[in-house]
Amino acid sequence: MKTVKVLASASVANLVCGFDVLGMALEAPADEMTISLTNTPGLKIVHDDPFGLPEDPEKNVSGAALLAMMKELDPGTGFFLRVNKRIKPGSGLGSSAASSAGAVAGANALLDNRFSSEDLVRFAMSGEKLASGVKHADNIAPCIYGGVTLIRSILPLDIVRLSFPELFVTVVHPQIEVKTSDARQILRKEVLLKQAIKQWGNIAGLVAGFLQKDYGLIGRSLEDVIIEPVRSILIPGFAEVKEKCIAAGALGGGISGSGPSVFMLSVEQRTAKRVADLMEEVYSRLGIEYKIYVTKIDERGIKIDEVLQHE
Amino acid sequence: MKTVKVLASASVANLVCGFDVLGMALEAPADEMTISLTNTPGLKIVHDDPFGLPEDPEKNVSGAALLAMMKELDPGTGFFLRVNKRIKPGSGLGSSAASSAGAVAGANALLDNRFSSEDLVRFAMSGEKLASGVKHADNIAPCIYGGVTLIRSILPLDIVRLSFPELFVTVVHPQIEVKTSDARQILRKEVLLKQAIKQWGNIAGLVAGFLQKDYGLIGRSLEDVIIEPVRSILIPGFAEVKEKCIAAGALGGGISGSGPSVFMLSVEQRTAKRVADLMEEVYSRLGIEYKIYVTKIDERGIKIDEVLQHE
Repeated sequence: MKTVKVLASASVANLVCGFDVLGMALEAPADEMTISLTNTPGLKIVHDDPFGLPEDPEKNVSGAALLAMMKELDPGTGFFLRVNKRIKPGSGLGSSAASSAGAVAGANALLDNRFSSEDLVRFAMSGEKLASGVKHADNIAPCIYGGVTLIRSILPLDIVRLSFPELFVTVVHPQIEVKTSDARQILRKEVLLKQAIKQWGNIAGLVAGFLQKDYGLIGRSLEDVIIEPVRSILIPGFAEVKEKCIAAGALGGGISGSGPSVFMLSVEQRTAKRVADLMEEVYSRLGIEYKIYVTKIDERGIKIDEVLQHE
Repeated sequence: MKTVKVLASASVANLVCGFDVLGMALEAPADEMTISLTNTPGLKIVHDDPFGLPEDPEKNVSGAALLAMMKELDPGTGFFLRVNKRIKPGSGLGSSAASSAGAVAGANALLDNRFSSEDLVRFAMSGEKLASGVKHADNIAPCIYGGVTLIRSILPLDIVRLSFPELFVTVVHPQIEVKTSDARQILRKEVLLKQAIKQWGNIAGLVAGFLQKDYGLIGRSLEDVIIEPVRSILIPGFAEVKEKCIAAGALGGGISGSGPSVFMLSVEQRTAKRVADLMEEVYSRLGIEYKIYVTKIDERGIKIDEVLQHE
């Protein structure tokens, strides 16, 4: 039984001004899983984590992604997946994307990489569809490719990898629940053209900032006039955290995906750590449990290691 | 009397998906002017072109720009400006921007460049305000800086120069009138969030395409789902020209500024010429007079030469 071990990173979708089109992979946290090619046709999933997720493949995000892949495989194919989720579901850190993308990337390694990375994105989007009702790739693409990715279009899929300068990322996950589907529903279906223009000026600036390694431009472009004003209402402490972190030297930041996690980018590691202290202060005072990560942009994408078998 | 000769380029604002934030300078056509520092305080303007533009400085776009600059100068300062417009007003090729930007850049040269390029953009926007009722910089910035520019923000002014690969530009100016103010009025004040997301995916793609010199990505990103569907109605032959030019190998293109000019980008000069032939065919058949330019992106910005005086 051939088995691989998979590490699939958390990711920050939207990157403030790039709602639904930009995403960035993080070095930590990451979901761990092992997947094996079995002699029994079909799919079996076991969770080794405390989140009580359904193990029925059709109701499991990894399962939905793998089933989408298995439609294009010999019906005799079988997989056994063990998942140890380290990215808490509902954190806004691409938890469902990591499970979906990790599962199909691991399966693909077992199949001698017969599918392209783009195929994997396509399969993994079935996991996202199950999790949030919408096929989106702004967590999946960075999780699979690593780094910062632009999803210019979903249909047809057009993923662009963007180069970026060294950056430290501080993330706080206040332990409150914000459902992606709720976070989508509170958005207005129409936006002012004037605001949209501001937003596309900022996303153009952010992309140029990453590619030209212009920290100042990155900072100035991390502004969201459309989504953040609505969604941030769901996140206690948001305005205070943002203001204090930027005052302490962070380039900028905002809601990670649909929240409740909040991220900040810093040029220096010591700033990223100071930002972590400030986040801690705010949420301790508010009496909200939290988890904080000081990490970097993950450059590698999904990490796969073959597990040696002693038979 | 110190005099300089100025060449101020035409420009393509919006670049299809970057409404109000992107612009690109062209090598041709360009407005020609001479400006002199005089002993008579105040401003005198003479036009050597056939367009019947007002020579009263307060009603003239170069005048409005220069008057904005002169507010920050010694009240005894005087200028004499002769303008030979080669960019037809109302073409959608940044005619008013060239006149405004050229005048203040020329004046600045006479003043030993005491103002920054950003100051010049600020002054020239007063010309745009007179011409179209709105202070915008998406023609002025490329005209002054050359190349492709992003205006991330007007207030405060944040101009970003973007590098770009070699490209040929074909422009057709069908000789019909589209007023910038009318072209603005027909736009809806609200847009669907779904469409705005598509648009910012495209602008991010276009910026990445320019910076990464990825012709395919530039072509795929030259799509405007918000402005073009409305404004193209004002331009006879638009859909046919666009379809045929892309079929003939152009990367893509669309309305230049608020029209009626239409531009297409090509990797090869012979494609750009073939595109010109196709544009000619369409407008000849429609019985609409036209002017066509096959040119390149201007890299230099405003060209200023000192005029030697024989006194």
